[in-house]
Amino acid sequence: MLNHLRGYFPILDWGRSYDRNAFSNDMIAAVIVTIMLIPQSLAYALLAGLPPEAGIYASIAPIILYAVFGTSRALAVGPVAVVSLLTASAVGQVAEQGTAGYAVAALTLAFLSGGFLVLLGVLRLGFLANFLSHPVIAGFITASGILIAFSQLKHLLGITAHGHTLPQVIGSLWAHVGDINLLTVLIGGLATAFLFWVRKGLKPLLRRLGASPRIADVLTKAGPVAAVAVTTLSVWLFGLNDRGVSIVGEVPQGLPPLTLPGLSPDLVGQLLMPAILISIIGFVESVSVAQTLAAKKRQRIDPDQELIGLGAANIGAAFTGGYPVTGGFARSVVNYDAGAETPAAGAFTAVGLAIAAVALTPLVYYLPTATLAATIVVAVLSLVDFSILKKTWGYSRADFTAVAATIVLTLVMGVEVGVASGVGISILLHLYKTSRPHVAEIGLVPGTQHFRNIHRHEVQTDPAVLSLRVDESLYFVNARFLEDLVQSRVSEGSDIKDVILMFSAVNEVDFSALESLEAINQRLTELGIGLHLSEVKGPVMDRLQETHFLRDLNGRVFLSQYDAWKALAGSAVVPDVAE
Amino acid sequence: MLNHLRGYFPILDWGRSYDRNAFSNDMIAAVIVTIMLIPQSLAYALLAGLPPEAGIYASIAPIILYAVFGTSRALAVGPVAVVSLLTASAVGQVAEQGTAGYAVAALTLAFLSGGFLVLLGVLRLGFLANFLSHPVIAGFITASGILIAFSQLKHLLGITAHGHTLPQVIGSLWAHVGDINLLTVLIGGLATAFLFWVRKGLKPLLRRLGASPRIADVLTKAGPVAAVAVTTLSVWLFGLNDRGVSIVGEVPQGLPPLTLPGLSPDLVGQLLMPAILISIIGFVESVSVAQTLAAKKRQRIDPDQELIGLGAANIGAAFTGGYPVTGGFARSVVNYDAGAETPAAGAFTAVGLAIAAVALTPLVYYLPTATLAATIVVAVLSLVDFSILKKTWGYSRADFTAVAATIVLTLVMGVEVGVASGVGISILLHLYKTSRPHVAEIGLVPGTQHFRNIHRHEVQTDPAVLSLRVDESLYFVNARFLEDLVQSRVSEGSDIKDVILMFSAVNEVDFSALESLEAINQRLTELGIGLHLSEVKGPVMDRLQETHFLRDLNGRVFLSQYDAWKALAGSAVVPDVAE
Repeated sequence: MLNHLRGYFPILDWGRSYDRNAFSNDMIAAVIVTIMLIPQSLAYALLAGLPPEAGIYASIAPIILYAVFGTSRALAVGPVAVVSLLTASAVGQVAEQGTAGYAVAALTLAFLSGGFLVLLGVLRLGFLANFLSHPVIAGFITASGILIAFSQLKHLLGITAHGHTLPQVIGSLWAHVGDINLLTVLIGGLATAFLFWVRKGLKPLLRRLGASPRIADVLTKAGPVAAVAVTTLSVWLFGLNDRGVSIVGEVPQGLPPLTLPGLSPDLVGQLLMPAILISIIGFVESVSVAQTLAAKKRQRIDPDQELIGLGAANIGAAFTGGYPVTGGFARSVVNYDAGAETPAAGAFTAVGLAIAAVALTPLVYYLPTATLAATIVVAVLSLVDFSILKKTWGYSRADFTAVAATIVLTLVMGVEVGVASGVGISILLHLYKTSRPHVAEIGLVPGTQHFRNIHRHEVQTDPAVLSLRVDESLYFVNARFLEDLVQSRVSEGSDIKDVILMFSAVNEVDFSALESLEAINQRLTELGIGLHLSEVKGPVMDRLQETHFLRDLNGRVFLSQYDAWKALAGSAVVPDVAE
Repeated sequence: MLNHLRGYFPILDWGRSYDRNAFSNDMIAAVIVTIMLIPQSLAYALLAGLPPEAGIYASIAPIILYAVFGTSRALAVGPVAVVSLLTASAVGQVAEQGTAGYAVAALTLAFLSGGFLVLLGVLRLGFLANFLSHPVIAGFITASGILIAFSQLKHLLGITAHGHTLPQVIGSLWAHVGDINLLTVLIGGLATAFLFWVRKGLKPLLRRLGASPRIADVLTKAGPVAAVAVTTLSVWLFGLNDRGVSIVGEVPQGLPPLTLPGLSPDLVGQLLMPAILISIIGFVESVSVAQTLAAKKRQRIDPDQELIGLGAANIGAAFTGGYPVTGGFARSVVNYDAGAETPAAGAFTAVGLAIAAVALTPLVYYLPTATLAATIVVAVLSLVDFSILKKTWGYSRADFTAVAATIVLTLVMGVEVGVASGVGISILLHLYKTSRPHVAEIGLVPGTQHFRNIHRHEVQTDPAVLSLRVDESLYFVNARFLEDLVQSRVSEGSDIKDVILMFSAVNEVDFSALESLEAINQRLTELGIGLHLSEVKGPVMDRLQETHFLRDLNGRVFLSQYDAWKALAGSAVVPDVAE
């Protein structure tokens, strides 16, 4: 019973052995992550089109709920760039940014996404996430990074712009290019340059100056905090907000409020598909991070329980003024590197952020949005990586096509169309490949019991025996292909008396393929040709055993191709021996 | 050049060797098919919701165009039951039955369907038709047969009813049940009973009376003509049309008119998806028939050229007052059995129908629609066959699920939703199966070089070596599965020093799987465990050769599993020899 409960509440597992040492490690990690998360949370809320406090709220309850239900020991849950972009795109279609309806729709999106994740987890359908192939994810993340960077340009230039696709955003920026505010450009440009330098140049500098790797790391991560502090002070001291520099302004002081997602059928209908998409993309990102970190310590995560953990986190976000969240790469790695041992580190981070929400929000009144935009741009540009195009081009044209289509369609048609097309194209290309399987005509390698492709090797053949090795599972997509192939080979070779299908690589024969085999058997029988199988795998044979096909088969099923050859190709083997 | 032309105009192939003998055989077949087609064409037009002449017109130009472009020597093209139902369903959504807009929409549907088929043919995409698995087709045909039979009940009862799903049709029939016309019920009932008897009882009776099999066959096929003649005469003699019996009425006399499909963007947009669906279903039906008949004479059909032939036939239907057509099972078998040798038989049939259109249409003025409905009901009930449910249940639950869903959804949600769901479900279930591939932990069968599942056979193993045989191609849907599996096995067995993946049944490794293999290699390297591959197929190896994975692999690639075992499992083999 307790074991069963532990399955659903992993906290019961690690909580029992929690000690002072783990506590102090978790505390240190929590402090570091909290410092990093404050500007990041404000920035991602901006990206999602929500008021800044939504980003902080989305990091408190979700973290605690994930600590209770999640299985990863290092995953840090909260707003992330790609999901924030997806939220902006989905919610932007049902409500105007800045309205109460917009915030409510974001809660609904988190609620639906959480509900869908929990449902998948309870039904143990985590495998659905695998439909997003690695290249499609890589292409999608790269294209999203570009879209996000362009969408932030308006904040760096101090103008207004809209749109959820690259042509829309660029067109909108161009239309307002006359409104550029030079002070904003200056702040945004300096912040961006500074943050890039922190990322690339600060750590080596600190190391040269004699800082320990740990200290250098922490200071590097605190870069955004420094940018926030300096630009906020500058705005306040010089009153730049009166000279056209847009600032964050009033942020309510207090703990996350209790909120209710809107559940009108209309709203739910419009947000359901985006919620499913956000769930799956968020889950994939989260699981890859969790798996990478768990593997380093020979730990295991349970993907189906992860669904429940993330689902609970999103439902939590829906009721506490947040928006969709997931396990983020950057924050999780920082958490892990800072020494977090258990999900308690996450809970301590939540406490840190709650303190910030209560006490520190007045400090960000003069924070320029350009600084937040700069932190986003610098963070997402590190996600942009076109090398996947080159890598897939060299390895497989099908994978290349899927990536290229995902990138282009995401940029031109938007995130939802882009990722959905990527998945669709990957599946179609896979099915296309299996629809024309490799089938080798094989012969005996002299002096062995091995059979090889007659076009690649010097082998013995017999014009009366056609041996075909089928290199694919047989199922509806390729069933007719085999029918055609056998018929075409048989109509070419008029001496053929027997056909042997070697099934060593056939992992499945579905009902359509079974009927095709029956059709092949029937046609060959009408032509007076024998049909035989060899090397049929156990699980495949178990199924065939009780079918008409096997009862009606005009030939035999041989354990090995060599047995089949010995029994059927006498005419070819004997002369060889006689000579 | 001529050979190339022959590819696109198969008529150039068989036309050159056409002789008097083939001519007389083709003529006899044409006469028999023409007699059968006249009532059938009228009936299917009724089913499609079109005026009766549309059925005749749809059998003239399309047959001739198929004779020029098609590759099957016996296929007879024209209106068929399922495509007529699909036409009624699609066109009924954009226009009111009986209006000019309805007929124009039917032409548009034929035009779009023809264009799509030609496009697929030119792009050689005939394999797309394979996405309809045999069980899904069987389920769809069965459900369509039931839907068609119910949709004809209104004609047999003399009432009006509408709807494209079973609940709609039954509800509508029930609402009008008070309007039943008893004379119509009498005619319809007698005609139905007679036609069933012709189908089941007439042929044995004729044979007992001493008729040759050929004559018995022809007379049986002429059954519908007899029903048409007798009921038409009865209506005329007794003036039943004045007593509420609905009749065919005026049918224009003359050759097919030149018509133009409507091509407004609105209409095209609404009919494009149904047209694609009709194309694919029609193509699948047609190709199965053509293939079955061709196989009997060791002939070949070219599926991609068939697309062009059917496409041309449909475009022809669009410009000559017809509606979507395809190769029909019943008419093709009759054509074949009657001795047709070349597509010229089809052309002669077209001439026969053209004569009927010019000369015979006044004769069907008094033909009761109840008789046509009876011929439809009797024809489609022979399509209804629930045995597919039992057969798939015994063989594969996945196939059963796909059939059951197709049947239920076709009946309840309509033909389009039904067949689309069937395809979607088949693909998802296939992907689901491959997402959790069979992976066997294997050991050496003592005294051999064979390796078998440790849970099924008595085999030698070595706690330091984990050998896994992967029974599936590795691609994005199952890439993470293998990652999880290896990680979980390794975290269970702490003595493991080497992992061997046996790839004998791995027919493909896509880019996602390659990255998973890289991840597995990296994690095992961190744990100090070696990763090795064995029995990698040629085409898979060709691709891996140039990848980082193979360069970074911490272990080796062995030609055979036995080689790998000899090299790595010394500790287990040596004691065996020593004892």
